[in-house]
Amino acid sequence: MALKLCSTGLVVEENSSYSFASLLDAILRGIGQVFLQNNSYAGLLFLIGIFYNSILFGFAVLVGTIVSTMTAISFGVNKDQIRAGLFGFNGALVGIALLYFLQPESLTWAYVIFASACSTVAMASAIRLFDVWKMPTLTSPFVLTTLCFLLACARFGRLHSTQILPTAGLPMVITVVDGVVNFSTVVEGLFKGIAQVFFQENAVTGGLFTLGLFISSRRAGVMAILGSLIGLMVAWGLGASEPAIRSGAFGFNSALTAIALGSTLLAFNTASVIYTMIAAVATVIASAALSAALQPLGMPALTLPFVVTVWLFFLGSSLFNKLRN
Amino acid sequence: MALKLCSTGLVVEENSSYSFASLLDAILRGIGQVFLQNNSYAGLLFLIGIFYNSILFGFAVLVGTIVSTMTAISFGVNKDQIRAGLFGFNGALVGIALLYFLQPESLTWAYVIFASACSTVAMASAIRLFDVWKMPTLTSPFVLTTLCFLLACARFGRLHSTQILPTAGLPMVITVVDGVVNFSTVVEGLFKGIAQVFFQENAVTGGLFTLGLFISSRRAGVMAILGSLIGLMVAWGLGASEPAIRSGAFGFNSALTAIALGSTLLAFNTASVIYTMIAAVATVIASAALSAALQPLGMPALTLPFVVTVWLFFLGSSLFNKLRN
Amino acid sequence: MALKLCSTGLVVEENSSYSFASLLDAILRGIGQVFLQNNSYAGLLFLIGIFYNSILFGFAVLVGTIVSTMTAISFGVNKDQIRAGLFGFNGALVGIALLYFLQPESLTWAYVIFASACSTVAMASAIRLFDVWKMPTLTSPFVLTTLCFLLACARFGRLHSTQILPTAGLPMVITVVDGVVNFSTVVEGLFKGIAQVFFQENAVTGGLFTLGLFISSRRAGVMAILGSLIGLMVAWGLGASEPAIRSGAFGFNSALTAIALGSTLLAFNTASVIYTMIAAVATVIASAALSAALQPLGMPALTLPFVVTVWLFFLGSSLFNKLRN
Repeated sequence: MALKLCSTGLVVEENSSYSFASLLDAILRGIGQVFLQNNSYAGLLFLIGIFYNSILFGFAVLVGTIVSTMTAISFGVNKDQIRAGLFGFNGALVGIALLYFLQPESLTWAYVIFASACSTVAMASAIRLFDVWKMPTLTSPFVLTTLCFLLACARFGRLHSTQILPTAGLPMVITVVDGVVNFSTVVEGLFKGIAQVFFQENAVTGGLFTLGLFISSRRAGVMAILGSLIGLMVAWGLGASEPAIRSGAFGFNSALTAIALGSTLLAFNTASVIYTMIAAVATVIASAALSAALQPLGMPALTLPFVVTVWLFFLGSSLFNKLRN
Repeated sequence: MALKLCSTGLVVEENSSYSFASLLDAILRGIGQVFLQNNSYAGLLFLIGIFYNSILFGFAVLVGTIVSTMTAISFGVNKDQIRAGLFGFNGALVGIALLYFLQPESLTWAYVIFASACSTVAMASAIRLFDVWKMPTLTSPFVLTTLCFLLACARFGRLHSTQILPTAGLPMVITVVDGVVNFSTVVEGLFKGIAQVFFQENAVTGGLFTLGLFISSRRAGVMAILGSLIGLMVAWGLGASEPAIRSGAFGFNSALTAIALGSTLLAFNTASVIYTMIAAVATVIASAALSAALQPLGMPALTLPFVVTVWLFFLGSSLFNKLRN
Repeated sequence: MALKLCSTGLVVEENSSYSFASLLDAILRGIGQVFLQNNSYAGLLFLIGIFYNSILFGFAVLVGTIVSTMTAISFGVNKDQIRAGLFGFNGALVGIALLYFLQPESLTWAYVIFASACSTVAMASAIRLFDVWKMPTLTSPFVLTTLCFLLACARFGRLHSTQILPTAGLPMVITVVDGVVNFSTVVEGLFKGIAQVFFQENAVTGGLFTLGLFISSRRAGVMAILGSLIGLMVAWGLGASEPAIRSGAFGFNSALTAIALGSTLLAFNTASVIYTMIAAVATVIASAALSAALQPLGMPALTLPFVVTVWLFFLGSSLFNKLRN
């Protein structure tokens, strides 16, 4: 097996049988898989949505997806997993998250490339680990990799964070409710909630993402809207601050939970729709809890609330006979 | 399958075949299962003990147990698990814990109802997760649910905590030993240690709990007393503060560990009694460690020290041939 | 089965069939297993290296190894596991770590004995837990036991920490790069990195450890040097402080990762050597991340970065076909 070093420093099999078209397809599906859609058109629309909001983030997503997919190919992952984009979506998110929280300097790009390669190892590891329960990895490899690479910056003087990275602090019980929620908060928050899955606080981008979801699966589109709306409403009812609600901060995890349970993992019947809605509400509590839990580390919760809630409701579903058809 | 919404907002099968008597039995066994006793008389005595100390907490336990049991019935959990009270004890503890740490306002009660329903999902999930090792869930679903719902309050302005919730802080190595331990510290601490399993700092309540344990199983009763005593003595020896010892704070986890390993999970012989006592001592260390570990979050350790220690000693026991008969 | 209490308070089978020679062999292999070497000569050289630097730590290692091995024998662990030193290496590390971070008072020694016994339970538990994935426990029982026993000191007035235990604080993003790295930093850091596996900041001790590794396995020796060097270089490149680099703080986890993946767990070919080197780099990021993550608790990361990284890369390897021969 002849090996050569390619320009990104990763090892690629010389007579690799991936055509350019099949690689492009795998990469677009990888971007689509961020919303659990194994669909290259959806992936393309997501990518357009990101480039619409920011060229920097568009490139970050591309670099992350390409590096993580190439790493998987280099170490010999089975073709069907590559083609489904399973080794692209974590890299896509790692790329965008690191450039969201770190200054776009050359060392950061090197860091992004290495982190994206590591996300492939984390994904392979997660697949093997959760296979015992036939449980999906969701975006756990992305969360693990990103938190690890962001936390590490506290020890390394040459990596510089942006102002967006939360400051470490002790969580305090807030007693005031900030700002007044009105109709524009709800509409903006709804679509920004969907856009925030890719860290884009932009309602038009959220609209493009929703369109991509409807192209791939009507049920996924409906679930994303319902999930984001539930996230927003519950956060409002419990007294979250208006700016946080408007920014979509309480929408994206619930949207992902609704898509995962409501259109992918469970059989479709009345009980499972109710179950999915309970999970979407629970995701809001989990978001608040995990964001507070990570505060002493100055770390964002990312999509961890979605991951943890869906795991819980997915594992639990096996004991609930009403959720079967 | 016709479905209707019942008053608590949960879905119940119309022609449910649970009689009132069997439901009552399941609920009392659910309360009994907090001490690992599948026994309705024990559950009744525990309930009386709680009402003796506080009517509010008595209602909290009832609401939590009923909601979590009804949720399990609604989603079609198998009848034998419902009847053994397996879907009641986490709700019982979630109900009491949330009302212990949050103001008894109407939003808190709604929060308790939703959290108790979620504890059922967490329980189903934990059963499936730990089935791989044939490992009991213990009260892990309660701990997970309660920590999540308490932590979330840091982000929600409409939920108000009581003074009892610890303040977030950095753990410091204490160098002074507070107060003098005397005979009354030991007696009070011993029974309050047993009462604290249900968050009741009341020696009479602890006495009623002990009586309930003896009714259900003499070995469980002896183990509870031994465990609470060991917890107290070790904490004293290592220099814990007198008020903490008197309150039973170092007794309840050790009491539960001793009951679980000494009367439920292991074969009964000399080596396993010694093993159980080592576990009871280890539980004190785990209590101190987990309480310090959760301090930056301002969160209580609840029964997590018991859960973690018993898991460790239970899993480990499979390699120790002397613990078999 | 007649039982008697031996002087350390542990129970030993009366007609135990372990000869003194076989016990001595098990204990030396236990010390060797800290570097994953099932080799008594390596263990002896490691012990000499520790005594060379500090008589206190030499005794700590002996006490920890003996107590944890005897505990395993007492509860009837299978002979082949005892003989391979599998129930010694966690105790060895627990003993040295507790005496590194706590004052060498009589209560500390009692604490060390109890903790070493608990490390045996943690090891048995870890073997059973990870058996599902055929995954090695590595030093996870040591890390768990030590963090638990050190954290517990925050609640116990009679245990006194040394100045070396980190102070609890919130992790801050450092923006300055401390000190200038020169040739002496690299040489000292390289060997101290290997010595730090046993908490010894001494280059000669590191040299003796390396010699021991070469005696046991040439590939293990080469991997240790490569790993320590990679750890140091990456930390330097990312802007770690010079004193931290010189002390070997960024070397020992990478050295262990390289030994584990490069000479024990993976098949030996070009792809797996590249994979091991990526893992060694990833260990540096994990070290920085975990050290920052534990800062609010004032706890050291110990060998947790090695454990977590190797688990990840080991589990992941099953999906990478190029890593097979």
